[in-house]
Amino acid sequence: MPVLPYVLEKPLPVPGFKVGSASCGVKSADLKGKRQDVTLIVADVPAQAAAVFTQNAFRAACVDLGEKTVREHATDIRAIIANAGNANAGVGEMERVWSQQLIDLGADAAGVESHQVLSASTGVIGEPFPIERIQDAIGEASTSLSEDNWMQAAEAIRTTDTFAKYASRQFEVFEQNISGKTYTITGVSKGSGMIHPNMATMLGFIATDAPIRTEILQDILSKVADVSFNSISVDGDTSTNDTVYLLSSGLGLGDTELEDTSAFEQALTEVAIELAQLIVRDGEGVTKFISIEVSGAESEKQARDLGRTIAVSPLVKTAFAGSDANWGRIIMAIGNSGSFIQSDKVSIKADDVLILKDGNLHPDYTDARGMAVFAKQEFTLAVDIGLGDASATVWTGDLTHDYISINAEYRS
Amino acid sequence: MPVLPYVLEKPLPVPGFKVGSASCGVKSADLKGKRQDVTLIVADVPAQAAAVFTQNAFRAACVDLGEKTVREHATDIRAIIANAGNANAGVGEMERVWSQQLIDLGADAAGVESHQVLSASTGVIGEPFPIERIQDAIGEASTSLSEDNWMQAAEAIRTTDTFAKYASRQFEVFEQNISGKTYTITGVSKGSGMIHPNMATMLGFIATDAPIRTEILQDILSKVADVSFNSISVDGDTSTNDTVYLLSSGLGLGDTELEDTSAFEQALTEVAIELAQLIVRDGEGVTKFISIEVSGAESEKQARDLGRTIAVSPLVKTAFAGSDANWGRIIMAIGNSGSFIQSDKVSIKADDVLILKDGNLHPDYTDARGMAVFAKQEFTLAVDIGLGDASATVWTGDLTHDYISINAEYRS
Repeated sequence: MPVLPYVLEKPLPVPGFKVGSASCGVKSADLKGKRQDVTLIVADVPAQAAAVFTQNAFRAACVDLGEKTVREHATDIRAIIANAGNANAGVGEMERVWSQQLIDLGADAAGVESHQVLSASTGVIGEPFPIERIQDAIGEASTSLSEDNWMQAAEAIRTTDTFAKYASRQFEVFEQNISGKTYTITGVSKGSGMIHPNMATMLGFIATDAPIRTEILQDILSKVADVSFNSISVDGDTSTNDTVYLLSSGLGLGDTELEDTSAFEQALTEVAIELAQLIVRDGEGVTKFISIEVSGAESEKQARDLGRTIAVSPLVKTAFAGSDANWGRIIMAIGNSGSFIQSDKVSIKADDVLILKDGNLHPDYTDARGMAVFAKQEFTLAVDIGLGDASATVWTGDLTHDYISINAEYRS
Repeated sequence: MPVLPYVLEKPLPVPGFKVGSASCGVKSADLKGKRQDVTLIVADVPAQAAAVFTQNAFRAACVDLGEKTVREHATDIRAIIANAGNANAGVGEMERVWSQQLIDLGADAAGVESHQVLSASTGVIGEPFPIERIQDAIGEASTSLSEDNWMQAAEAIRTTDTFAKYASRQFEVFEQNISGKTYTITGVSKGSGMIHPNMATMLGFIATDAPIRTEILQDILSKVADVSFNSISVDGDTSTNDTVYLLSSGLGLGDTELEDTSAFEQALTEVAIELAQLIVRDGEGVTKFISIEVSGAESEKQARDLGRTIAVSPLVKTAFAGSDANWGRIIMAIGNSGSFIQSDKVSIKADDVLILKDGNLHPDYTDARGMAVFAKQEFTLAVDIGLGDASATVWTGDLTHDYISINAEYRS
């Protein structure tokens, strides 16, 4: 059961973009017609593009090709084609051929050139890619293209995700030529195993009509990815295919370039954090959603690395699962971060319950008070290492029997 | 159920050492008299000492004190006192006081000076240390001192270990003054959670009568620890207290210093690897024992780091648990090692079944053949990254429901 105590708001259409999907039976032929598994996002005009990719040294061909396309054609992107069910990774020499064929199919379906198309594949690694099944059914994606189909796109990129993930924000701009104009950002994402900083088996596609050119988009996306997609962890594993694409139609639609991108950056940060948190909320086997706020670090990177070390520790995650305020495991994880730590400067709080203050157990702390917080479905673990002023937040879930069942008993 | 398809041989006595134990109820008073939880190892003569300690930045006081004692008195060590049930870690200002008191109790019980005593504590982190209960019962450890008590020592340092771990080797020396003499090495160890390279919640005490002085002992122990205790992983967590002590009585007993220590190093390596492997075999929830042999690396460190990355991946470990030859997860883990990897040079074998050859699935490989290996209780995963001549082996287990139960449902 995902940790989703609220209902997602319907994603907003983004001027300049249409979305369609198809049911191709990518994972196995008998799924054809049963679930949507190919997504097509089409820009009516040349879009400005930005991207962040997996840090895994084994990168799937779609990542290599996507990076090349963004590098060479970042002001002229017209479509994204994505499939679930097969990652087209680890399959040797055919991988690049199949990946290019998928791009060509996307170009045909969108009525654009292949060099204008980005692709992404997610699913099982190491199995032959069923390009013919996609070819047979990709027509559905073209005929279903609509401004209002973002929810279907979110649906069609799911693998083991239990719900479709999407988020939208709007912001208003007050500049000389475009006073009072409202722009939209809509994104979709998918998890849910191999989730870890540096882009896990994670796809994110974000579209906006804000008129911003590629160089600035890329700077903003790289910055935003650090505090969103790179700040979540389900199991510490990072996949071969992780990709976030950000496309902007605004300049293509004839709008004047934004001078001040701060409202855009703020809205994009909110969209990206929401999409990233949804991945944790739907993490394999996750029953709890924990925010780990690290402060007192000497750099944001130190804070984030420390948060990640806590977030991936199996002993910490099983303590979360067991509602056990076993803070000994938390200091163990802090000590393992590889950072310089002064144990007598470390303080730990769970929600409003102070556990450790400057390395000593707080006199008011009792196991019962700690347990009351750890029993909650959502709580915040605040760790202050007392060395500097930098901070970062990492979001994670617990490690449960269901994670084992999902990953030991099925091939995902 | 541990993966232990053989019966351990009884540990051999080591000239110059006596061992005793006591039941103090360290973890809780009602365990007193029910299980042995304090161990005393006494050298009849000043012993030469060497040590390796946890790399965790949160180090327990016993580690700090032990390191200081080895630095200052490495040629004059007379005892080790160790307790299970409480790690005396993360308890703030009293930690060092209690740790020193434990050493003082050990010195009294052994009839030696405090500066000649090393200590180690293992068990739950963050709970007050019951020094009075140890004081009350430590007498039992002195009265039970005997050359033949190594098995009891192994028993008394257990925490969640399901069996006592010990190993012995003997080797013969042919040198001018000591031709044909046989020396003994006997060691005990304990696991079994927080097990990871760089000394996990792991204790190892090894004694020998081989006449070797401290500097050489330390060099050899550091080298041996890398290929044994630092080459195992249960869950990727590293504890605050991990310690391996190596004591030698030989010089104190009046033997001439060994000129050639190669036979000793070989025997010590065997003892240390056996003690380390026993920890994996008894890892929390472990049902399989997997040797990960990495070759073709540019350095031994690269090979070992790569092996560790594979060994700690939850997705790989759950695939082991599920007997699923999901080699896609293995290449994912290889890609996450942080090393430079050329995917078209990577080959993977499970026992004698070649899966991947130079980045391509081997034509003879079938899922059924892979599954047949992954279904075994013990197997070897050989990964060749095709870049150089260095290699290393790492041992690990699978990640199962029992690991979750042990760590989510009990406070360990």
